[in-house]
Amino acid sequence: MTSLTDDPATVLASGIDITPEQYGVGARFTLSAYDSDYVRIILGALGGVDASGLATETNDISTFVTGSEQRVAQYLRDVIAATAASGAHVSVAILLSRGCPGELQCALPAGVSALGAAPVTLASTGIRASAHWSLYPLLDAGAPSGSATPADHMTPIYSAIEQAKVEGVYSGSDHFATRLDGDLASVLETVANAWIAVGATVQHVATHVTLSINSPSHSG
Amino acid sequence: MTSLTDDPATVLASGIDITPEQYGVGARFTLSAYDSDYVRIILGALGGVDASGLATETNDISTFVTGSEQRVAQYLRDVIAATAASGAHVSVAILLSRGCPGELQCALPAGVSALGAAPVTLASTGIRASAHWSLYPLLDAGAPSGSATPADHMTPIYSAIEQAKVEGVYSGSDHFATRLDGDLASVLETVANAWIAVGATVQHVATHVTLSINSPSHSG
Repeated sequence: MTSLTDDPATVLASGIDITPEQYGVGARFTLSAYDSDYVRIILGALGGVDASGLATETNDISTFVTGSEQRVAQYLRDVIAATAASGAHVSVAILLSRGCPGELQCALPAGVSALGAAPVTLASTGIRASAHWSLYPLLDAGAPSGSATPADHMTPIYSAIEQAKVEGVYSGSDHFATRLDGDLASVLETVANAWIAVGATVQHVATHVTLSINSPSHSG
Repeated sequence: MTSLTDDPATVLASGIDITPEQYGVGARFTLSAYDSDYVRIILGALGGVDASGLATETNDISTFVTGSEQRVAQYLRDVIAATAASGAHVSVAILLSRGCPGELQCALPAGVSALGAAPVTLASTGIRASAHWSLYPLLDAGAPSGSATPADHMTPIYSAIEQAKVEGVYSGSDHFATRLDGDLASVLETVANAWIAVGATVQHVATHVTLSINSPSHSG
């Protein structure tokens, strides 16, 4: 596992002294290259990208990365772009999570509840990505923990879909998922910024997106 | 899209006349074969498996399948086993969802709320699978909709993890996901039965699992 730096940029911009790692900000993703040379392609991509400000850990199923939302999103963009540069058909299953650190509980430091963060900004890649995206605001039943907590879990999902339309990457609602198409950076921005926006009022928010790049279906 | 049959087995065993499709029971999954011959491998697997009692739709990102929990789980086992039989390293990103049909709302027929279903049973495959698994009980804030509704979203997750230990496939908790190892059928059973069990008291439940099969890391 690479180590997290002491870069002050890794402290959440919340006025509360808690790092992204303490708040459980991060991603777990599985890169798939549909190519017999996949070991070289995937390990080359994972090894060749700037991981400063991040902690990463790769095993036989997936790669875990934690750090600020901006750095996590940049890292995903860079690793995926490097994999796609091979020309192979690539799919990527990504899970982003905030607000539930630890492996068996969502325990935060005392006094900390839902925390927002600045939206991420990613430079374009020139790589076209298609995606199926699902957003999960993980509310608890009983009284809302704060006045800003949404009453039901679907309201923030509808808002995120409307925002994806504004951002130009929305291309339809399929069963269980919203379809996004656009530059890899734009798709990741929309997904990450919806996750961050819901996180301002819901402590534990997860989102899953499966990306498809260089599909032979896209060249038709 | 293949058509759903009128097989009475597709009606939920709930005493309420609602089909799995009406209740939004189904899966969306992306099969990845890390092999330059992936088109033949994946289309062969998707085309060679019994899809009776199910409706399926495949596009450039993923395949959607709806039907009873048992048939959906069997279909996933069979498609994944057929893909793995190629010998290629395979990963599969699976989303299972219940209780939120429709593409933009969780509208159920009048009088229907959380509905249980019988656990699935799958014959073993002889194929070893490793998985990262996440379970999302999608509660709403405010008063619980029924006395059986859990007070917080983590309690059913802990229960599911304990059950995975009983079932012998649990092999650790990683960030954002629980690791499962075992026969492909056993892993899918644990995932599907946790999803079904939580669904007895929570209307909308999604679960995501990423499977890895034939990994070169596993032969070491």
